[in-house]
Amino acid sequence: MFKKYGNNAVVGQSGGPTAAINASLAGVISGVLDSKEIDTLFGMSNGIDGMCKEKLYRLSDIFSSSADSIELLKFTPGAALGSCRFKLPDPDSDPAFYEKLFILFEKYGIGYFFYIGGNDSMDTAAKLSAFSIKNGIDLKVIGIPKTIDNDLVGTDHTPGFGSAAKFVATTFAELSRDTAVYSQKCVTVVEVMGRDAGWLTAASALASTESTDGPDLIYLPEAVFSCDACFSDIERIWEKHPDILIAVSEGVRLPDGSYLGADSTKTDKFGHIQLSGAAKVLADRVKERFNCKVRSIELNTPQRCGAHNASLTDINEAFDVGKYAVSCASAGKTGVMAGICRISDDPYTCVYRTFDVNEVANRVKRVPSEFINENGNYITDKCITYLRPLIEGECSPPYKNGIPVHYRFKKL
Amino acid sequence: MFKKYGNNAVVGQSGGPTAAINASLAGVISGVLDSKEIDTLFGMSNGIDGMCKEKLYRLSDIFSSSADSIELLKFTPGAALGSCRFKLPDPDSDPAFYEKLFILFEKYGIGYFFYIGGNDSMDTAAKLSAFSIKNGIDLKVIGIPKTIDNDLVGTDHTPGFGSAAKFVATTFAELSRDTAVYSQKCVTVVEVMGRDAGWLTAASALASTESTDGPDLIYLPEAVFSCDACFSDIERIWEKHPDILIAVSEGVRLPDGSYLGADSTKTDKFGHIQLSGAAKVLADRVKERFNCKVRSIELNTPQRCGAHNASLTDINEAFDVGKYAVSCASAGKTGVMAGICRISDDPYTCVYRTFDVNEVANRVKRVPSEFINENGNYITDKCITYLRPLIEGECSPPYKNGIPVHYRFKKL
Repeated sequence: MFKKYGNNAVVGQSGGPTAAINASLAGVISGVLDSKEIDTLFGMSNGIDGMCKEKLYRLSDIFSSSADSIELLKFTPGAALGSCRFKLPDPDSDPAFYEKLFILFEKYGIGYFFYIGGNDSMDTAAKLSAFSIKNGIDLKVIGIPKTIDNDLVGTDHTPGFGSAAKFVATTFAELSRDTAVYSQKCVTVVEVMGRDAGWLTAASALASTESTDGPDLIYLPEAVFSCDACFSDIERIWEKHPDILIAVSEGVRLPDGSYLGADSTKTDKFGHIQLSGAAKVLADRVKERFNCKVRSIELNTPQRCGAHNASLTDINEAFDVGKYAVSCASAGKTGVMAGICRISDDPYTCVYRTFDVNEVANRVKRVPSEFINENGNYITDKCITYLRPLIEGECSPPYKNGIPVHYRFKKL
Repeated sequence: MFKKYGNNAVVGQSGGPTAAINASLAGVISGVLDSKEIDTLFGMSNGIDGMCKEKLYRLSDIFSSSADSIELLKFTPGAALGSCRFKLPDPDSDPAFYEKLFILFEKYGIGYFFYIGGNDSMDTAAKLSAFSIKNGIDLKVIGIPKTIDNDLVGTDHTPGFGSAAKFVATTFAELSRDTAVYSQKCVTVVEVMGRDAGWLTAASALASTESTDGPDLIYLPEAVFSCDACFSDIERIWEKHPDILIAVSEGVRLPDGSYLGADSTKTDKFGHIQLSGAAKVLADRVKERFNCKVRSIELNTPQRCGAHNASLTDINEAFDVGKYAVSCASAGKTGVMAGICRISDDPYTCVYRTFDVNEVANRVKRVPSEFINENGNYITDKCITYLRPLIEGECSPPYKNGIPVHYRFKKL
């Protein structure tokens, strides 16, 4: 017989923020407010770290009578509750950590745990779910996907990706107008986020439409990059037009397996190599080879928080996935990630379903080979068909004093 | 008695593109279409260079029956006609250049010359106007201001600045949400365009509103920068909150007068020193000093072409200035720049007037000392009052397939 601490729920955000992670939070809040099974919803300040320190917002009180605030939260970038990068210890080697955490779950009557994040966060969900089952505690643990990298296994795509992709595609469309103004030969190299998966870089191709141009060349981490091949590509394109726009993923690798833009002396706390400057390195090499005008641009953090140009499709799905997660927990599911299953490309149709969180944790979904052209310097039509619907629709967030209005919590 | 070649007009765009330079072009086109004095309007491909090579669009034909296209052109970034960076020779030392050019003006019946650009372009306008007067030719030469740098003398502000300022303020508001998600100490340094004038960097302060945060520190080229003072600023702010956001102008200078981010080995063809990496340099020094988490972001080219988030005030003014330039030419003015004169801050009210182009050419309007605080690390309320109205209003440009629709000319 499993022991249930209560009918309260707690939600947290973890990992790098996106333009849509707060839409998923809004979905969880909305779902709990509509729910008959769940009483109070707490929000962890800075993810699991806030649970350990009992830094909790009473979300169901804060939002109980304010549909406007939920709507505003949907269009607010960043992680409104605060985030953390905290990998849970192995339950077998450090059970004390879990025991302390579950004492707090009992104290707050937590029967439902929602965690919005990427594959490191799904690892958290997997461990909590496994620990609760092993110890006979009835805790429903549901992961809610978010990452601009679109690299989670199972779900057709991840909330947050569509908005980042729309930012990237819009920026490339605008850059292509900017780079086209002079008649001299020039090469502009634009670096897009994506360490191991090139989804976001691939989205630059969506800038190529009837009225706008996208990049001439797209280099993803999934294809081996060679400077010589790139130089040949540049010479070939110069026969057609003088201004060349290149999209390069931060994680592009050379034939020897090393990152083009790697600084191998720096690693983060998970041991990932810190990357800097794939575009800068490539621009320098192009300059060296052709002595033409070059420019390197790193889209950097703005691409993951550009909520003013978010994809309506993405924001709506992020909200719906959050709400769906609540319904899954209420229906008794645990150890699963709420996700998206595509039924059709045209008309674009999706349904929501769950995925075993163990299948998602710590794994990376890369751009498949049929989405990349033979020369490894562009993407295929099949990839465009996959990507296009994800950036559809504009959000019109509220503006005041000339800039977007955001929701923010009072400091705890 | 002055000789007039005809009643046709020609318009060109020059210098770095902006999100509003095409709105001024649209204004000129609209003005000519409404004009009784001017017959055909030609558009120079790539500025004055296109005139020399007779690469001309017949704009009055292209747009004669298409109000939609004019509207679309208003919201298209870049320079739709193409641009150039071409400084006219001195008329006394190279009269042949002018004689050749004026033969072409005669061939095309040009009585009116409109040039949209920054202070180098106003130099072009000044020289053409002086040459025509000296040689008894009735050519009305009108400069139309454009630059994201807002550094033209005379006019209250420059078309193109408001949209770039809105891009900068919006991006800072979004970045402040992104950088606030973790609880550890971190410093994010964001580099904004502006070699000699810090107007655009100052606009980052507009991100500070009821619901959004702007930068904690703002360093402009007009104030002397010292790393030690910056380190003290950082320590002081850390007493209040862990995440620090810094706006730094690309042209910030050290006490010895050298650029913080200068690479003195590189100069452009006008002899300006090429700058790269004020933010990178500062971030490295902060890392060295505090060994905390740091990030540097260069807003780069996207800040001058972000038309999807253009300021409606700016786009409307850019259009109106273009149209006003046509009325000035029709009224017989020459050797002037059409510009903006502010009547009141609140309600924001402006009128259009002309400025002697010789007063504008080759000069730079810097941020005045009363707009910068005493410590040289932020701007004053007076500066905010000046800046705020310029980013007001949103444009809602048309979108298709998830990205903005742009106008483009067929290749000549």
